[in-house]
Amino acid sequence: MTHDPFQAGATPGTTPAATITSAANGRIKALRLLRERKGRAATGLFLAEGEDALRMALDAGRTVASLVFDPGRAGAALQAMAERCAAGGAEMIPAGPAVLAALSGRDNPPRVVAALPQPWVALDALPVVRPAAFAVLEAPRDPRNLGAVARSAEAAGVAGLILLGESCDPWGPDAVAASAGALLVLPVARAGLEEFARWRARHGVALAGTSLAAELDYRRAPYGEAVAVAMGTETTGLSEELAGACDLLVKIPMRGRVDSLNLAVAAGLMIFAVTEAQR
Amino acid sequence: MTHDPFQAGATPGTTPAATITSAANGRIKALRLLRERKGRAATGLFLAEGEDALRMALDAGRTVASLVFDPGRAGAALQAMAERCAAGGAEMIPAGPAVLAALSGRDNPPRVVAALPQPWVALDALPVVRPAAFAVLEAPRDPRNLGAVARSAEAAGVAGLILLGESCDPWGPDAVAASAGALLVLPVARAGLEEFARWRARHGVALAGTSLAAELDYRRAPYGEAVAVAMGTETTGLSEELAGACDLLVKIPMRGRVDSLNLAVAAGLMIFAVTEAQR
Repeated sequence: MTHDPFQAGATPGTTPAATITSAANGRIKALRLLRERKGRAATGLFLAEGEDALRMALDAGRTVASLVFDPGRAGAALQAMAERCAAGGAEMIPAGPAVLAALSGRDNPPRVVAALPQPWVALDALPVVRPAAFAVLEAPRDPRNLGAVARSAEAAGVAGLILLGESCDPWGPDAVAASAGALLVLPVARAGLEEFARWRARHGVALAGTSLAAELDYRRAPYGEAVAVAMGTETTGLSEELAGACDLLVKIPMRGRVDSLNLAVAAGLMIFAVTEAQR
Repeated sequence: MTHDPFQAGATPGTTPAATITSAANGRIKALRLLRERKGRAATGLFLAEGEDALRMALDAGRTVASLVFDPGRAGAALQAMAERCAAGGAEMIPAGPAVLAALSGRDNPPRVVAALPQPWVALDALPVVRPAAFAVLEAPRDPRNLGAVARSAEAAGVAGLILLGESCDPWGPDAVAASAGALLVLPVARAGLEEFARWRARHGVALAGTSLAAELDYRRAPYGEAVAVAMGTETTGLSEELAGACDLLVKIPMRGRVDSLNLAVAAGLMIFAVTEAQR
């Protein structure tokens, strides 16, 4: 007998699971807590919404803990992914549109929402294969900016994202959605400033940051073969400590009356300048 | 007798206006409607929050219709600006922190909120002084993205922002805040596709857009002396019609598994590539 996740229960051979139609179901309520930082911290899990996100996660070798999917709206592609999840030991939860709407917070709900272990990577496990670029955010506060930076970093071929200090949670729904799947595949590490400095020294990774006072144009800097691009918070920029640790301080020329850029935009300019200079 | 806007009423010589302390005040309720698109459409006004925004607007020669300011927290700089507003005929409304919190939607309220006429510029009034670059957004939906694009455009020295088709409102509080003041100084025009095509033909402005299928690298394209950079919506990209109208289609190289960028990031890369190529 073959296992069909759309008819069978959580595990091959068990009784078929009934489709859950109420968001008040206990298991769904538990998964909904993953929309809040507290619920994510308590479980180490987070939510990925939609088939594209699920595909990226599976292709990156991620493990799915629970898969909530709508059997009534699933096509062949989602069925195939659900089978991979079931084979990998995922809890399979068939559910109706109202449940998926509650889990995703969207009126027009996705056909699938997955709960996955937060894929934090240890700083020392980040791959430093030259040429290598890393995106570094110091104490980012806006999950959408964090997600957009992850998206730019992954699209540019950056080797990892490093979060320094008190960061907003990269595993919240806003950050994950803004990353367009990047947070499902890009290695993400977190560190304190000292640990980060030791890591850079150990791996020979230069630190580049932006400063309005710098002379060096960001497109003409000698970034080298292994570079971490550091961006400060939206409001205060790089901390003095991190700016002081930079091997290269560069400027993005400002020619108008506005003298700063959106954090994700500035990070995008720097990330593309570095990765393009490395080719 | 000199006019002191912190003691006098709306107009020099009138009775001093009492400080409004309740957000339920009729005048404040009317101004609060400017936080909604409907209220802005009905009046042609919008709100700018904080001293930096007010300074940029005044320095750009903008007219202030109403100035709500906190006399208890105003320093010399704000006093001087309030005098300029009063001299320009602005309605002067001294108000307490609770009123400014209600107007700004912020717990930590600014010391001033100004209502200004929406500074739409006619397409033909946009300055085309070569080298000239324009940022063009087709049917943008996210006010924060629109604001971030305006911020990049102004910072890069772009000559104007053009909104094509059904755009979200650039004069909403989210867009204005995300622009970091850029929407207070950058000329903003709106147009339909045909009107935009006629304008480009009349002024000899080339149209550049991005496409994943393009061969030409965005940093090496011959943009020329007058260029409009077109960006499509976050979800669907450029319309076929606008992509077909482009003189130059360029690509931003994607080297990861994510094959697109946040709209504001992609616009930032294009805007800086064009303005840097024009120097």
